Amino acid sequence: MGANDFAFSHKARRTQVQPVAALLAAALGRDDLISLAVGFVDDETLPTEAVRGAVDAVLGDAGTGRAALQYGTTQGLADLRERIVAHVAGLEGRSADELGLSAGHAVVTTGSQQGLYILADVLLDPGDIVIAAAPSYFVYTAALTSFGAEVHTVAMDDGGMRMDELERVLAGLDADGRLDRVKMVYVVTYYQNPTGLSLAADRREAIVGLVRRFSRSHRILILEDAAYRELRYDGPETPSIRSYDPANETVAMAVTFSKSFCPGVKTGCLLLPDDLVEPVALQKANHDFGSANVLQGVLAELLRSGRYVEHVERLRDRYRRKRDTMLTALRDGLGDLPGVRWTIPTGGLYVWVTLPEAMDAGPTGRLFAECVDRGVLYVPGEYAFASSPGGSCGQNTLRLSYGLPGMDEIREGVGRLAGAVRAEAERIGVASGTEATRGR
Amino acid sequence: MGANDFAFSHKARRTQVQPVAALLAAALGRDDLISLAVGFVDDETLPTEAVRGAVDAVLGDAGTGRAALQYGTTQGLADLRERIVAHVAGLEGRSADELGLSAGHAVVTTGSQQGLYILADVLLDPGDIVIAAAPSYFVYTAALTSFGAEVHTVAMDDGGMRMDELERVLAGLDADGRLDRVKMVYVVTYYQNPTGLSLAADRREAIVGLVRRFSRSHRILILEDAAYRELRYDGPETPSIRSYDPANETVAMAVTFSKSFCPGVKTGCLLLPDDLVEPVALQKANHDFGSANVLQGVLAELLRSGRYVEHVERLRDRYRRKRDTMLTALRDGLGDLPGVRWTIPTGGLYVWVTLPEAMDAGPTGRLFAECVDRGVLYVPGEYAFASSPGGSCGQNTLRLSYGLPGMDEIREGVGRLAGAVRAEAERIGVASGTEATRGR
Repeated sequence: MGANDFAFSHKARRTQVQPVAALLAAALGRDDLISLAVGFVDDETLPTEAVRGAVDAVLGDAGTGRAALQYGTTQGLADLRERIVAHVAGLEGRSADELGLSAGHAVVTTGSQQGLYILADVLLDPGDIVIAAAPSYFVYTAALTSFGAEVHTVAMDDGGMRMDELERVLAGLDADGRLDRVKMVYVVTYYQNPTGLSLAADRREAIVGLVRRFSRSHRILILEDAAYRELRYDGPETPSIRSYDPANETVAMAVTFSKSFCPGVKTGCLLLPDDLVEPVALQKANHDFGSANVLQGVLAELLRSGRYVEHVERLRDRYRRKRDTMLTALRDGLGDLPGVRWTIPTGGLYVWVTLPEAMDAGPTGRLFAECVDRGVLYVPGEYAFASSPGGSCGQNTLRLSYGLPGMDEIREGVGRLAGAVRAEAERIGVASGTEATRGR
Repeated sequence: MGANDFAFSHKARRTQVQPVAALLAAALGRDDLISLAVGFVDDETLPTEAVRGAVDAVLGDAGTGRAALQYGTTQGLADLRERIVAHVAGLEGRSADELGLSAGHAVVTTGSQQGLYILADVLLDPGDIVIAAAPSYFVYTAALTSFGAEVHTVAMDDGGMRMDELERVLAGLDADGRLDRVKMVYVVTYYQNPTGLSLAADRREAIVGLVRRFSRSHRILILEDAAYRELRYDGPETPSIRSYDPANETVAMAVTFSKSFCPGVKTGCLLLPDDLVEPVALQKANHDFGSANVLQGVLAELLRSGRYVEHVERLRDRYRRKRDTMLTALRDGLGDLPGVRWTIPTGGLYVWVTLPEAMDAGPTGRLFAECVDRGVLYVPGEYAFASSPGGSCGQNTLRLSYGLPGMDEIREGVGRLAGAVRAEAERIGVASGTEATRGR
């Protein structure tokens, strides 16, 4: 560092460009590129008329209009917090009372990302430990790393984070005398980013007991990220982990309207155990003393009028068809290739593809370059394996999203991907019999 | 800490309830209370129609509407950043080029508070030093304390932070071998919160040279908080500190639309030296990956259409009259009391009152209680003296705001305050001759 350099904080020095951001930036400027990479939502579903109507309802009245344009509270608009709590209780099929939830447990945040971030801010010192699934939502694990936290990972199966593996990791940390550094277990319960898999119903109760059992030097928090919950396309509504914590002691739940309504309003909410509400609100006060008040009024109005629920219904129909389109295209393009498999998500925005082990889907590998050449972009799966002790893995995996692209783009994009995978399979000699024959 | 307690981060443990928040909460529930305490803006000026019109303009078109409701970029909407840069250049009476400013130097934030916070996040480790005026904007100095930073203070006079004192503080830190811990100098240049005073024009150039001279182990940042800049009621527009840093090396400027337009849209902006843009954007990505996109579109439209500038003009007229009303009421109520004086702000929202030295205006003192009894609330000035080495002071000072109350409330509120001050002056024997006689 020279005299003409700023002297950055340790946190700033730990904060790197998100590799996905770098990758997306590098691929920009190609008009014909189909991005199956970004987790954006479908442009055509963006509810311009619903938002406009709600803005008119809120600002059309001088009283509510002025209140919406004035400062709000740090914790967030009471009316919105009440409606969110009622809405979440409705999803659980329980009353707020039964869940031990009230508006007083809610803190409105700038998207759920800010909620996740502030919880880290409130709990983590450098050297602390967060346990997450492998793979995990990489934007958050990168943020955790900026706090100097270690992210320890737990293997997944089709039922999400494995409870036997979680117990093994916790017991291992206990044996190492490091249980006192474990501050939270982070779980994306519904249609996880990046795999599209949900935590199995029977694990949702089990994880509460398991984490409590290891809460010996202090209480370990389960941070349940329910960002994709309302994007459910098949099957029944599953109760959250939070619903198994009616005493409201162990689980914080992050919800957002970015995926189920629209990202542009950037409003989420934390539902917190009693003794986290004030610490989170105090940090939030320092961060920004409250998210944009006018948008909170608009969201409350959308929940009140029923326009929000209507929109979610429309969204589900559309995404269900897009998911089906992607799954069909994958079957058509890669169904016969040995060693290739993918998840069948019942909600959310993502499909996780596993390629033959010898195939490198990483950002510097041949497949990625080949895909960019053919005009399709995916997220290399290795980004989603947090840099835990043990190093990265998942080089033969990738994340696809059907969020942003239209039906035709999904078909075309998966077709291009399949072509690239087949070419690579042939090159390294893992193609299927028929394919291999045809290829010779 | 017991097994059933969460184990909070050092930062959370350093973060206290803002004393002002506690004070305001304690005074709530009194209907007849006139608050001259909060820095809220005038309800009647809140631009419901302008915002509604801009929302209609943005969302009424499917293309711009959908873009506004989709994810934006972390750095913020390019159109808005360009308009902000042009607007700020206009205030300086210079071109953006002359100022060394472009949209690439701007990062949109959730109010200017988030900008101030993220700069602290990027620069400060525990034990680092920030230099600020005494008194200073207490919400920010409290946030700085949560980072474990020391806030060292510099005395003010009517021209704001004294440059000889700033030099003395820097030289003292140098002599102590602690210059390497000084990361920034924080200055509210226009109509400072809490005093209403501005940094004198000739100090604006001087501070850049002074801080550069002490930037020996690394570059020290001047953080210029221009939150109140556009609320100018008398006198000419003064160039910012930033305008004396055309190489864009030393000064970061925080701007906000909360005061000059409305708090509910909660949108501000940092204008940054080149080598701070990426570090700030990376932290912001972890915090929330971008402020609400739809509001950025709405603000860009308001700047484009001229409605923003129109609104600022109306706001100025109204606040100018409210300021005059407060100053007149102070003269009428306290003009003859020896040892009482107040600032004559030419902009902003605050008047700073100094009482006789023996009078305790603190939150636990008799005057404060007497004022609450009489139905008026102020901010004790001692809150604005950061807990620097040397301890607090300013027990005989208080901050008044004419932002929220109407004309009649200002008159009545100041009248009640004057009554309480006179009663207290008499009790402790510092009343004027006439008053003392009349009182006996």
